[in-house]
Parts: sequence; C-alpha cells; structure tokens
Amino acid sequence: MFKGTAASPGIVLGKALVLEHNELVIEKKSISDVDKEIERLNDAVAISKAELEKVRDKAKVELGEEAQIFESHLLVLEDPELLGSAIDKVKSENVNADFALNEIKEMFVGMFEAMDNEYMRERAADIKDVTNRILRHLLGVKIVDLAALEDEVVLVAHDLTPSDTATMDKKKVLGFLTDIGGRTSHTAIMARTLEVAAIVGLTDATDKIKDGDFVVFNGDTGEVILNPDEETIAKYSQMKKEFEEYKKSLELLKGQASVTTDGKHVELAGNIGTPNDVEGLIKNDAEGVGLYRTEFLYMDRTDFPTEDEQYEAYKAVLEGMSGKPVVIRTLDIGGDKKLDYLQMDEEMNPFLGYRAIRLCLDRKEIFTTQLRALYRASVHGKLRIMFPMISSLEELLQAKAVCEEVKAELDTENIPYSKDVEVGMMIEVPSAAVISDVLAKHVDFFSIGTNDLIQYTCAVDRMNQKISYLYNQFNPAVLRLIKMVIENAHKEGKWAGMCGESAGDQRMIPILLGFGLDEFSMSPISILPARKLINSVSEADMKAFADKVLELGTAKEIEEFISETFK
Amino acid sequence: MFKGTAASPGIVLGKALVLEHNELVIEKKSISDVDKEIERLNDAVAISKAELEKVRDKAKVELGEEAQIFESHLLVLEDPELLGSAIDKVKSENVNADFALNEIKEMFVGMFEAMDNEYMRERAADIKDVTNRILRHLLGVKIVDLAALEDEVVLVAHDLTPSDTATMDKKKVLGFLTDIGGRTSHTAIMARTLEVAAIVGLTDATDKIKDGDFVVFNGDTGEVILNPDEETIAKYSQMKKEFEEYKKSLELLKGQASVTTDGKHVELAGNIGTPNDVEGLIKNDAEGVGLYRTEFLYMDRTDFPTEDEQYEAYKAVLEGMSGKPVVIRTLDIGGDKKLDYLQMDEEMNPFLGYRAIRLCLDRKEIFTTQLRALYRASVHGKLRIMFPMISSLEELLQAKAVCEEVKAELDTENIPYSKDVEVGMMIEVPSAAVISDVLAKHVDFFSIGTNDLIQYTCAVDRMNQKISYLYNQFNPAVLRLIKMVIENAHKEGKWAGMCGESAGDQRMIPILLGFGLDEFSMSPISILPARKLINSVSEADMKAFADKVLELGTAKEIEEFISETFK
Repeated sequence: MFKGTAASPGIVLGKALVLEHNELVIEKKSISDVDKEIERLNDAVAISKAELEKVRDKAKVELGEEAQIFESHLLVLEDPELLGSAIDKVKSENVNADFALNEIKEMFVGMFEAMDNEYMRERAADIKDVTNRILRHLLGVKIVDLAALEDEVVLVAHDLTPSDTATMDKKKVLGFLTDIGGRTSHTAIMARTLEVAAIVGLTDATDKIKDGDFVVFNGDTGEVILNPDEETIAKYSQMKKEFEEYKKSLELLKGQASVTTDGKHVELAGNIGTPNDVEGLIKNDAEGVGLYRTEFLYMDRTDFPTEDEQYEAYKAVLEGMSGKPVVIRTLDIGGDKKLDYLQMDEEMNPFLGYRAIRLCLDRKEIFTTQLRALYRASVHGKLRIMFPMISSLEELLQAKAVCEEVKAELDTENIPYSKDVEVGMMIEVPSAAVISDVLAKHVDFFSIGTNDLIQYTCAVDRMNQKISYLYNQFNPAVLRLIKMVIENAHKEGKWAGMCGESAGDQRMIPILLGFGLDEFSMSPISILPARKLINSVSEADMKAFADKVLELGTAKEIEEFISETFK
Repeated sequence: MFKGTAASPGIVLGKALVLEHNELVIEKKSISDVDKEIERLNDAVAISKAELEKVRDKAKVELGEEAQIFESHLLVLEDPELLGSAIDKVKSENVNADFALNEIKEMFVGMFEAMDNEYMRERAADIKDVTNRILRHLLGVKIVDLAALEDEVVLVAHDLTPSDTATMDKKKVLGFLTDIGGRTSHTAIMARTLEVAAIVGLTDATDKIKDGDFVVFNGDTGEVILNPDEETIAKYSQMKKEFEEYKKSLELLKGQASVTTDGKHVELAGNIGTPNDVEGLIKNDAEGVGLYRTEFLYMDRTDFPTEDEQYEAYKAVLEGMSGKPVVIRTLDIGGDKKLDYLQMDEEMNPFLGYRAIRLCLDRKEIFTTQLRALYRASVHGKLRIMFPMISSLEELLQAKAVCEEVKAELDTENIPYSKDVEVGMMIEVPSAAVISDVLAKHVDFFSIGTNDLIQYTCAVDRMNQKISYLYNQFNPAVLRLIKMVIENAHKEGKWAGMCGESAGDQRMIPILLGFGLDEFSMSPISILPARKLINSVSEADMKAFADKVLELGTAKEIEEFISETFK
C-alpha cells in the first residue's frame, strides 16, 4: 500500500493504463520517391487534423473556455510556412518527411522561444505539440487515444495535461493516479469537476505501477493498493458499494434545505470559472454561486474582453442561476495567473506582488470596463460584486468609489442596473482579517478565501512541495482569524461566507458551522455531501466543538480531535 | 526640488560627482613591437593589483567580512591561465594587448557562465570585474577612484556597489543620492552604517544631476534641491548647523539610561552582521545586541563554516559586548539570501518558501553545528538564542528539542556551557503573532521582526517597487498584531523586543513605548536618537497616545496623527 494526496472521492478497482511520453527518435534518411514521401506527410497531417478537431469539439462541450487551446493547435496545422517548408525540404534535399518536419520544427521553435514575449514563447509550445503529433503518426509511434478507450481503466501518469482530461472518454476512465500535484492542482480540480476519483502527488506511481496492473484505491484517504489479494478486493468492492449507496442518498437531498438540526440555515453555493459551469451547479442543487472567477474570461485571448463580451458572460450566469445569488469576483490576475497580452514585470515573489485589486486600482480602465459590464448585467439576476486581495481600508474605499463612478455613468447614459447589488470583499490577506471589524462597516459581506489566507498567514507558498507540510487549514492561527472575521461581520449585521477549498471540506465544515459561517461556496461535487453533514448536526453542538478545537495548540492535535469526534 | 526615500539622516550641501559605468571599446590592431605590448599589459596588471590590494586592506578595516570579495579578485589577477593566455595570444597573433586580454576574458567568462553552478557563475563576474579593471588601464579610460577623491563630493549613482562603499574615502564623501533602492537596500544600510546622509530611490537622479552641480539635500525628508538659490543655501546651512548641534547633544547621552520620564526602563540594542560591527555598537553606547544575523558567517565561502569558526565569531561578539546581552539569530538563509555551496531548488515565491528554521529543521546537521558553537560560546558572555520564521508551535518545540540534544551532547563530552542561555523566537510570520499567547509559554522572549511581519501581513514583497505603497508599518493590522504579541509575552512574564527597521524609527518608538515594548534593536546610528526621544516622554502619555492611534482605520490617518502630535 502506498499513499498520496486524496484529490477526488470514490472507491476504484480496475486495470492500470500507464501514460508515458516516449521520446521520438528521428533519423535522417535519403529517399528516392519524393512524391510518396510528401503523401506520407500529408496523410499524417490529415489524421492529426481530424484528431484535433475531435478533441476540440469534445472539449468545447465539456470544458468551455479551455477548448481554445485546441483552436490554436489547429491554426498551427494550417500554417503554410510550417508544412510548406517541410515539403520544400523533402523535395530539395531528398530526405525523409519526419526528418524534414523535425528540422523545420526546431527552427521555428528556436526562433519563437528566443523571443522576449510570453505570448510568442507559448506559440513555440503549440508548434512543438502539433508537430510531435504529426511526427508520431509518421513514425508509427502508438498514441494512447484517451477518447477511444476499449476497456475501463485507471489512468496512471506523471501528471495529466488539459488535453488529456479534455479528450478522455469519461465513461471508460475509473480514476486518476498521478506522481505530482496537490489538492489544488489542475488534475485534482479536473477530477472533482468530472466527478472522477483521484489521488495525486504519489511521487512514483508511474514507476511502481505497470500497464495492466490491477489497482484499488480510495480517493477519500489517498490509499492505493497494487495487485491486491482477494480479501482486499472484497473489502474495496464492499466500500465501493457503500460509496455508491452514499452517493444515492445524496441524490435524495436535492431540493432540500441546508439546515442544522436546531434550525440554522446556511447557503451552500458553488465556485465556477465559466458560464458553462452553471450546469454542474444546478445538477448538484447549489443555492447560489459563491465565487465566479472572472479570470477565465480574460485568458487564452489576444486582448481584453470587451464590456459587451463580459456583459454576456455575467448575464448568462445570472440568468442560469434563475434569481439565486451570484457572487462575481472582479479580476484576480497576477500571482501565478498571467495574461499573454498584458505585459507585466517579472516579480521575485508574484504571490506577494502586483495582482488582483492592486492591478485593477492601478489600471482603472480595466476595472471600470468590468464594473460597467457587471452593473449592466445586474438586472438579470441577484448580483453580488466581490473585490479580491483587499489588504487595507483605503483599497476598499477606492474600489467602492469606482463602483459609484460607474453607476453615475450608467445613470447619465440611462442604462438600467439593479439597485440591490451587494458589494463585498474577500478576506484572504491577514491584515484584512485583523481589521475586519473596521472593514465590515463598509461592505455588505465578506467571503473568506482560505487558500490565500493560509498561504499568507503561515508564509507558505501553497504550490511549494518542499514546505507543503506547513500549509494547513487547521493551523490554530488560521482558525482564529476565520472566527474573528465571522464575528466581526455579524457585529455589523453583515453575512460571512467562504470560497476557499476549506468551505467544502467535511472535516472543516463542523468548525465553520460552530463559528457561525453563513455561506459555504465549494466545488459543485461537494455541495450535497456538505448538506448531508450540515443536516445531521446541531449548531449548538458545533459551537461547543469549535470552542474545544480552539483550545488546542497545534494543527495535529486539532486534526486528531476532529477524527475522534467524527469517526 | 525632487524627492526620494530618506535613507540616512543628515543635511548636505556640496558638489555632485555622478558615477557612470562607461562601455569599453576594444579594437583589434596589428602590433609590431611584441615585447612592448607585453610590457604594457604587465604594467596595467601591476597597477590593477596595487589598487585592489589597497581596496582590500581598506575594506578589511572598515567592512570586515565584505572584504573577502577583493581577495577573490586578487586571485584572478594572479591566475597564470588567464594572463598567460593573453600574453601567448599577443605573441602568436601580433595583436594588441587589450584585444588579446578581452578575447581571453570572453572565453573564460563564457565558459564559467555556462556552468550549472552558482559558485562558478559568480567566478565569471569576478573575472569580468578584474579584467575590465586591467582593460581600463590599458585603454587609459579614467576610473573615478573613490579612495582618492580630492574634493568633498556628493556621490550620485544609479546604485552603489559594495566595492564603491568599501573603497570610498569617507572623509570626502558628504552623502549619497541614488536612482534605485529602498530603506532596506544595500546602499541605504551602508549609508546608515557609515553615518553618511543618503537619499535612495530618486528614479532619475543620474539624469537630472550633472557632474559639478551644486546640490543640497535632507536625508531625513528625502528632499533634494538642485543648484539652489542663496536663500535656500542659507536655510540648509542653518539646518546643517542645527543637525550638528543635535548630534552633539546625542553625545551627551552616552552612558545614560534609556528610561521614560515616569521611570520605564527599556533596552536599546543594536543589529549586527559580523563581529566587526561590535565596535560601532560600543561607539553608539548600545545596551546589547538585539540581532546578530549569522548569515554573513555562511556567505562568500565555498563551504559551511565549521563549528570552531562559528564558535570564534560568537565568542568575539559575546566578549566584545562585555557581559551585555547578545541575541544571536540562528541561520536565516533562503528567501533572497542564497549560499553558493548549498544547492537549493528554484522557488516561485522564495519569501514564502524553504528558508530559515524550515531549512534548519530539515537539514539538521547544519542546525546542530550552529547550536553547538553557540552553546560552547555561551560561557563568554550573556547569550540569547533566537529562531527565525517560526510559524507554528510544532516548529518551536522541534527547534527547542534540538537545543536539548545539543546540550546533552556537550554534557557527555564534558564541554562547558552557560545554564542561563535564554531561548526565544522571532515573530515575523502572522500565524506566530496570532498564536503568540500559546508560543509565549515556551520561550524566554519574543523579538518582533517587522520587515517580514509587515510583508506577510499585508501580502506585499517589500522589494517590489510597484506595490511599495502597501508596505507600511503603520497599517493598523500590523500595529494591532505588534500590540497583541507584546501583551501575550507579558501575560506569561516574558519580555518582548523588536529587531525590524521600525524599532529605530522615531515615528514608531512612541507607539511601541505605549504598547510596552521592552527591547528595541536597531542600526547603531539610531540608538542615541532613540534614547533622546525615550528620555523625553512618559510611558503613561505614550499609552494614551497608542490607544488613540489604534482607533484610526488607515495608515495615512495614523501617520498624520503622529506628525501632529510630535511636531
């Protein structure tokens, strides 16, 4: 048995399919039949094109915005400079097509990579991906086509790419096991979105597990067993059955209220990235959107989205949620999220840098365009606007002043907007938590962003594997700050929510209930399990429980206490 | 008038000397007299060597450890590979010496720079510096020799290098004005250490100011006036006179206690980097060392310092302070401080990464060696050991356990150590401040590191110019955390100090006195001004003042309130 990071729940028993990225070996050969060689190349291009179109169409349906990358790949395929040059080389030098294409690829990739422009460097990656696909066809290197799997498999990989998760046949993929990644990595988030069980960060899964090995794993505990005995198989089969029954019991909770046994109602909302995600929220009976990350609107483009483009997206979400509340976070770019078309200085510590509201207050035209789109869309539903990364009262007041300017503009232009838009802020910077009593007077709500709040409070980059043991939501300092924020909101008659990973964590929810949290926003898949838990406990008990938790000095003691209490 | 960041106090009136780094233009020429050409080269080498020896000797006296870099430069000069190859080239190709040397330089630099080893890459920088010095002599390019200035000058530069500040004739340099840098940059710290008035971060001082321009500036306010009129000169001359009288009044405070008018004694200690800095502390009548940054012991070397080397350094400081308390901070490497010989992974956010106590608890042999040296040295004075970057109780307990192991080892080996060594920790991570009540039970003292505490609390990289407006010690959240830490220490009968920049800041000291801070550790130059201020106020008044400060919601209001109160 070995262990990784539990990334997406589910019990899985199945045959492993280990994805490897084989090196391509290209040899230079003299050829005599030039026409035949060019035909070979054209065939490989045609197959690649058909594959990519299939991938793109599939991705469009299932992933929305993420499909854009495949459009770029198709454009590369159609570029006459690239393929034309390869054909010329075959003709003029009498060399094999794979050698010729590879040489042209290297030339272009080298040229783009040398450019001092992030956008151009990414084009180099596109060219590499696409030409490698053609080369694999020319060389007859087998590509595992995840869209056309024959048997049910457990995917084992160093990591999964967006293209892997976009193309795979969900019906045939039982689960993911990867060497790298944490709970907030791309693979983990995709697994939860697609409702596929997954364990990440297994370090050497691709070494230990061979193609065709039988594996069982538990996406809730992170435990993997390789080629288990009969007894283990029986045990896991039973667990799988129970898990499926549990999932069925969740179905029964749809349409029910999220309320403790002693009558405290809370709002269970979902986090989304694009309007397409609304479907998953509705399927999971979300009571609202607690975090719409608008960054995705700005990504994989060549310029900022227009006010109208944004308006359409916000409108789609507001209408899709049919009057349920929708918290839309203003642009949170910077940190690890860059835009190709927005030149930004390299920063030594981007997480402590020029990002989110800092950028929006500095580049006011970006902020104003977004706020105009938001207010215009506000007539289509129940909009709540939220500012990220506020660290001082000054910033909050400045951001609110821009809202007022935008509303005055709309008034002048006779453009309607809702007068009931709530304006709130994220609590993710420790300074904001510490002065939340002051800030609460100036907002309609707080939403605690635990991912960043933990990161800054403990001075730990959550992506840094080497110190990941310090990144812990149960650090007593983090819990105290959360409690303080909720209390300060309530003192001013405001509501407090949470939209970090912790809000959907079954071990955290009892503590948050005890602290009095009003709104929980999470991955859609976590909503019904959260409701089940909330409906089974009383707020009074959770208050007493949370008080005991706060008496403990270390995260480890707290985790043990939770495990004992909720066995 | 234009403004920069006030970096070191003093009123200056004088002529500008603008330092520029001219490009060297090397032409290839055929020469006929090979022997003469080689003689030219040897002469240039001899002059360069004499210069470097002078620089090294001067630096040794004034800067201690920082002088090491010049030893490396001298070794390059004596390397037969380098100069021998240049001479061979002159002989075999009949080319001029500067061309030959430049070719050889480029070859070696290219070779070293390509190596995947930080240490070797720095050797490339050494070779470049040294050969450029020789080339300048060969080409007759004037080098401003800061060690041999004829007139008194104000140095104006983009930035000053360690070699500039090491070599300059302090008697002739009235002050520094630089384009870049903040209050904690190298130039600013050196200016305060050398007691030279300075303004940094002026953006375009080297453009605006021409060689020979007359400038006046105020190192307290950051104001520079270029070619002032008679009236301004008279005004600044008067201010300079007053400043000098103020400095004289500080002299009278030597040997006096640091005590408020109502009898609260505080300890005014100094921050140091090497044993050589003790001299400056004693000159400024420091009551102890509040922070000995042991990193410098580990830098500019090819391997870790041995236990004995460390022992000698710690002993020197303890003996130098003659029984006054000495807080020695255990290794705080990582973040922006790297060691050539310690391979570390590149990190996306080094300030939120693997550093300080995190590294020491992981690489226990490094930590143990340092603790052994510390305890062995403890018999020579009053030692206080301090751990940096503690973010949880677990880390503190682990670090203390290593101390116990080391003491048990020394017991077994019959090596004496003091039983009265105090063990404390820095409060620089927000989580530590928030749970300081818990931590206080397990330490003898806290020392608040404001530089990092502000950085993490406000999520602002203090080196990032673009968002420096957010890095503010008067952020109300920072002040609340400081107050909380001091109160939590006192509740457990422990003392609380501060060793960040704020401890020596005249605007901050009244608030810190009001909060009850027991120890203030600062640049040596700030000690007597701090004593003057402390001796002139009552703790009771400062408590009332600090309470009023905490009622204000923004840093700006707080700064204005301080300015009004202490006009």
